[in-house]
Amino acid sequence: LDRTPGERDGSYTQRIITLTTDFGTRGPFVGSMKGVILEINPRAQIIDIAHEIDPFDIPDAAFLISCAYSYFPVGTIHCIVVDPGVGGERRPIVAVTARYSFVAPDNGVLSYIYEQESIKQVIHLKEPAYFLTQISRTFHGRDIFAPAAAWLSRGIDPQRMGPGIDDYVRCNIPRPAVSGDGDRIQGCVIHIDIFGNLVTNIPFSLVEQHLHAGESGFTVTIKGIVINHLCKSYEDAEKGATGAIIGSHGHIELFANQDSLARREGIAKGEPLEVILG
Amino acid sequence: LDRTPGERDGSYTQRIITLTTDFGTRGPFVGSMKGVILEINPRAQIIDIAHEIDPFDIPDAAFLISCAYSYFPVGTIHCIVVDPGVGGERRPIVAVTARYSFVAPDNGVLSYIYEQESIKQVIHLKEPAYFLTQISRTFHGRDIFAPAAAWLSRGIDPQRMGPGIDDYVRCNIPRPAVSGDGDRIQGCVIHIDIFGNLVTNIPFSLVEQHLHAGESGFTVTIKGIVINHLCKSYEDAEKGATGAIIGSHGHIELFANQDSLARREGIAKGEPLEVILG
Amino acid sequence: LDRTPGERDGSYTQRIITLTTDFGTRGPFVGSMKGVILEINPRAQIIDIAHEIDPFDIPDAAFLISCAYSYFPVGTIHCIVVDPGVGGERRPIVAVTARYSFVAPDNGVLSYIYEQESIKQVIHLKEPAYFLTQISRTFHGRDIFAPAAAWLSRGIDPQRMGPGIDDYVRCNIPRPAVSGDGDRIQGCVIHIDIFGNLVTNIPFSLVEQHLHAGESGFTVTIKGIVINHLCKSYEDAEKGATGAIIGSHGHIELFANQDSLARREGIAKGEPLEVILG
Repeated sequence: LDRTPGERDGSYTQRIITLTTDFGTRGPFVGSMKGVILEINPRAQIIDIAHEIDPFDIPDAAFLISCAYSYFPVGTIHCIVVDPGVGGERRPIVAVTARYSFVAPDNGVLSYIYEQESIKQVIHLKEPAYFLTQISRTFHGRDIFAPAAAWLSRGIDPQRMGPGIDDYVRCNIPRPAVSGDGDRIQGCVIHIDIFGNLVTNIPFSLVEQHLHAGESGFTVTIKGIVINHLCKSYEDAEKGATGAIIGSHGHIELFANQDSLARREGIAKGEPLEVILG
Repeated sequence: LDRTPGERDGSYTQRIITLTTDFGTRGPFVGSMKGVILEINPRAQIIDIAHEIDPFDIPDAAFLISCAYSYFPVGTIHCIVVDPGVGGERRPIVAVTARYSFVAPDNGVLSYIYEQESIKQVIHLKEPAYFLTQISRTFHGRDIFAPAAAWLSRGIDPQRMGPGIDDYVRCNIPRPAVSGDGDRIQGCVIHIDIFGNLVTNIPFSLVEQHLHAGESGFTVTIKGIVINHLCKSYEDAEKGATGAIIGSHGHIELFANQDSLARREGIAKGEPLEVILG
Repeated sequence: LDRTPGERDGSYTQRIITLTTDFGTRGPFVGSMKGVILEINPRAQIIDIAHEIDPFDIPDAAFLISCAYSYFPVGTIHCIVVDPGVGGERRPIVAVTARYSFVAPDNGVLSYIYEQESIKQVIHLKEPAYFLTQISRTFHGRDIFAPAAAWLSRGIDPQRMGPGIDDYVRCNIPRPAVSGDGDRIQGCVIHIDIFGNLVTNIPFSLVEQHLHAGESGFTVTIKGIVINHLCKSYEDAEKGATGAIIGSHGHIELFANQDSLARREGIAKGEPLEVILG
């Protein structure tokens, strides 16, 4: 087996590998993945993105990585393991884009990436030379994804890792709908952040597009609550009061200043909402 | 724009940047900050201090960083982002001390640092060349604090980042009060650790100062509980029994051996207590 | 004091130090340890394994590190601090094996390591030159374990750190019992993972040993629940249905597909179970 470059001359590249999982930090999962990576490439720079994604929550992981990946240097290898189908039929893949590589199960967790990045190839990881020798039934993060990411970080051509595929899985990303004369936009909550703010699937750019010249009316209704102020900062709302804001992802976000809007109003992911303009 | 040193010859310094936030590890916040830092200085050594500070809890973050910062090598850049006022009036700053730099919002989170370190200058971060190009309304950790810390790690003179200020914000740090003939000290709980131990604002040095020669009486009362044993270790108390001890920060700490005193007795931050000597 | 190698010529080795603690990520504990390590060896590569172990849960920490340690490169220094007896009689130790070093309190947290690794020496850490100057009563992670690990990472001979001992503490590891004609194996739950899966103390190798040729019957009973399917993947069970599987540690594991079996059935660590073969 030729695993060069790197192996022959020890000149492993110092590539960044990020980890995003639902493994938490009270078990051996994350640590084992890190060990596997460092065993293969001692110079890999391992960066924790997030490990407390809700168990099995593929859409949330998909959204999270879509928010974070592009801030990393070109060449970063993002390894995302939210993998309820581990050991089953779902394929392990690496998606190579113009700027990054994404190692993940083919379960839709890369859905936003497929839209946001220019995809060069998606490879079905099949070549066992780049896996651990023993593959467990329950932990491919350690046995397949971590070693594949580590070998990639050593400069292995992904094409040596398996065949290209083009039928990779995309989640059903909930899309906002525009109705009326463009003065109503229906959307939903796609992520609740640690502060209890509600991230919606409505990009502000869509709102802008439908704002008629001279109009400034902006109202959001969600679960009977009416929010009619698009704030410039959280503090624009009184302490505890609700507001809407353009979030750090460019989407409309709903919040209660210094409170958890999600908990206070019992709002969960998927909750529908409507933006009314004019 | 001249961003040297570093940029010209690629000789970025290998500086440590620590991160302390209330961003948790289930969203994209921490990962995005790390990406931004590595994009600017691929050789920065990013160290997570803590990300599970209670949301918006500036005093707790202030206490936490005051306990941890001084164990790091001189030259370390500490980036602290607990920032409920993001996007509003509060200023982003860097406080440069004789030994460290602290990048943070000017909301009091550096209050203990101002007392413990020799402050050389506090700079209002204003120069957009050291921020991301786009500044969001809700996430200056990514857009301002992380890039500023990364540029500092490349050796940029902080004075190039904005004007010096001297009206930076200090929290109201709760002080212990001594009464009687110095035989009573009133204080409060300022931090509850993960084990449920109660960290007080009473330094043991203050107790020592008021211990009369030959006296050894030491009693703490808190929420109707009386603790009259200053232990040499947690195990000095029976399993489940309460005790007082000199904590790792030098303050009086109250505990129940292998139990959570805070949860068991329903004690929260701010709870008053009294130490009675003699 | 001669702390060479490393000190003289600055050629500190670039060793990996892993951290496994019950310190959480909302206080200064983990950050302080990292600072201490980097102060002593700026080139140490610090890797977080897990910090959310249940407070004081020595057996769980012992199991966790036994699952993760061996995936790291030979030479890695594993630092494990779950230390309810801090400041008391328990000794700080370093266990040197053929492949790794383990720095920990001598409270049984290395029990599995003693079985799985070839032990070369166990040293009672006594030499204060390798501790911080001030030793607190409550936080030896920072004052003793982190500095000892950092000095080891600089190549210090552990024998210079204290005397060898051979009466180090081993936990009572719960063993499975085989009864009948080998067709019944009694065990218990030793770990509950973040997904609510139940990890048992029954290695699949023990099951294999007692499977008679031609027999395929396999039933597990636990708390009145009967599971009679040894799955090849979690998905082998319907969504929500229970199953048994060979876990990533090689032990029998019980699960409910995409649900938390532990929470749903109210099962805690220690719960007994029985495997019935044939």
